Amino acid sequence: MKPAQSPLLQKAYDLRQAIRSKAHTGPTSGLVQGAMQGNVVILPADWASDFLLYCQKNPISCPLIDVSEVGDFTMPELGHDIDMRHDIPEYYVYRNGEKVENRTDIEELWQDDMVAFVLGCSFSFEHALSQAGLTPRNIEEDVNVSMYETNIATVPAGRFFGNTVMTMRPYVPKDAIRAIQITTRFPKAHGAPLHFGSPQEIGIADLSKPDYGDAVSVKEGEVPVFWACGVTPQVAIRNAKPPICITHSPGKMLVTDILDTDLAVL
Amino acid sequence: MKPAQSPLLQKAYDLRQAIRSKAHTGPTSGLVQGAMQGNVVILPADWASDFLLYCQKNPISCPLIDVSEVGDFTMPELGHDIDMRHDIPEYYVYRNGEKVENRTDIEELWQDDMVAFVLGCSFSFEHALSQAGLTPRNIEEDVNVSMYETNIATVPAGRFFGNTVMTMRPYVPKDAIRAIQITTRFPKAHGAPLHFGSPQEIGIADLSKPDYGDAVSVKEGEVPVFWACGVTPQVAIRNAKPPICITHSPGKMLVTDILDTDLAVL
Repeated sequence: MKPAQSPLLQKAYDLRQAIRSKAHTGPTSGLVQGAMQGNVVILPADWASDFLLYCQKNPISCPLIDVSEVGDFTMPELGHDIDMRHDIPEYYVYRNGEKVENRTDIEELWQDDMVAFVLGCSFSFEHALSQAGLTPRNIEEDVNVSMYETNIATVPAGRFFGNTVMTMRPYVPKDAIRAIQITTRFPKAHGAPLHFGSPQEIGIADLSKPDYGDAVSVKEGEVPVFWACGVTPQVAIRNAKPPICITHSPGKMLVTDILDTDLAVL
Repeated sequence: MKPAQSPLLQKAYDLRQAIRSKAHTGPTSGLVQGAMQGNVVILPADWASDFLLYCQKNPISCPLIDVSEVGDFTMPELGHDIDMRHDIPEYYVYRNGEKVENRTDIEELWQDDMVAFVLGCSFSFEHALSQAGLTPRNIEEDVNVSMYETNIATVPAGRFFGNTVMTMRPYVPKDAIRAIQITTRFPKAHGAPLHFGSPQEIGIADLSKPDYGDAVSVKEGEVPVFWACGVTPQVAIRNAKPPICITHSPGKMLVTDILDTDLAVL
């Protein structure tokens, strides 16, 4: 086994091992801050090029970080000894566009023709926000980030289409402005927000009822700020209806050895 | 006379000449887009170091571009043949902190001990906003930008203190986010906004009644976005009560030969 190159990478490795052994099956938000976390989509090879195009056409919601070789469940560019069949705390299994199962590993489901996609995640900028004194409410309240299906359409590609899923973090306006500046530096982690203010304007009926993750408190004087979310592909998968597709469970991500700071531009 | 170095600088020079001859006495917003416009404060030398410190301590509202030599009414670094006694469309004259007069030149009031300060102005990023398809409403409606005294205190320095004056431009949230990114590139022109949303939160009672400039329409779905304004020193001047102080009239600026793009960072 390759020795860990830094205490941070050791922590990332240790967390992946804890996940692999099923000691950790919960959300990964706020864990190993500084190590990039990724959204996961696993598809049969004959669906992969459509999905690759979908990511290309929707770089804000689907910022592609890496794609595996066909049938290869390691992702050597993303971290030491990663096994995509085991190293996500919880998987969703979709068959013909319907979620049929949650699993803590997918060893039995892995196929020789499968391709794994890893997409950037807004957790990458949460560390930068925290360091700037703008700790996201979901980290303060130790819950999964709030995620909502919106009415903002993505660009369709091949068989994939659907609306954008967004995460929400509340801030007072002054801090929202600073958060916009900070997150602009992370285009591979969804970058700047897409919206702030009225949830209804983007098709969210009730902020206290996120479609994925947990609700967080929004305090007097704060406005909800919405960033594109890597759960967006799951809506497109439900629409495209591939015979099988496996994703991470929202908020329970692949923890990589890439540094969040390496994703930052400027 | 030095030949103009470009059509833009020729236009800037021509506008200054039109102002000098009193052919143009109106607002300068949207004119000679691309040429930096500046806020002006002229003070006796024994008040200048306090004011310099005030600018240093409040770089967002008072981004200092240049200071004249004592008694020198030219600003050679800022443009060809500038005469600070004539080249602003309208001046405000303050005596002991009270505005006593509006003038279209100050030749009779100029003193050998006077120092002129030129501060950056949000007009410098209006061109960049327009080029991005985010034309400010005040330009669309061909009026002076709306300016408001807020309850956001500046940092006092010597005898100068007071609240921040802010300009307001309305945008839908998506465009406001883009406008925050664009204006962040212009720290010498007040940079990113200080606030968006509720005017009451920053002490503005009625958006339709700006303290300086003109009201603009705010459409359904738009939020007001507030940037620091170079009129802020005029509040501090009313508080400091120097025996004499001459400023530009809000929205009627010094048009320089500096390029707005030269102010942009990144």
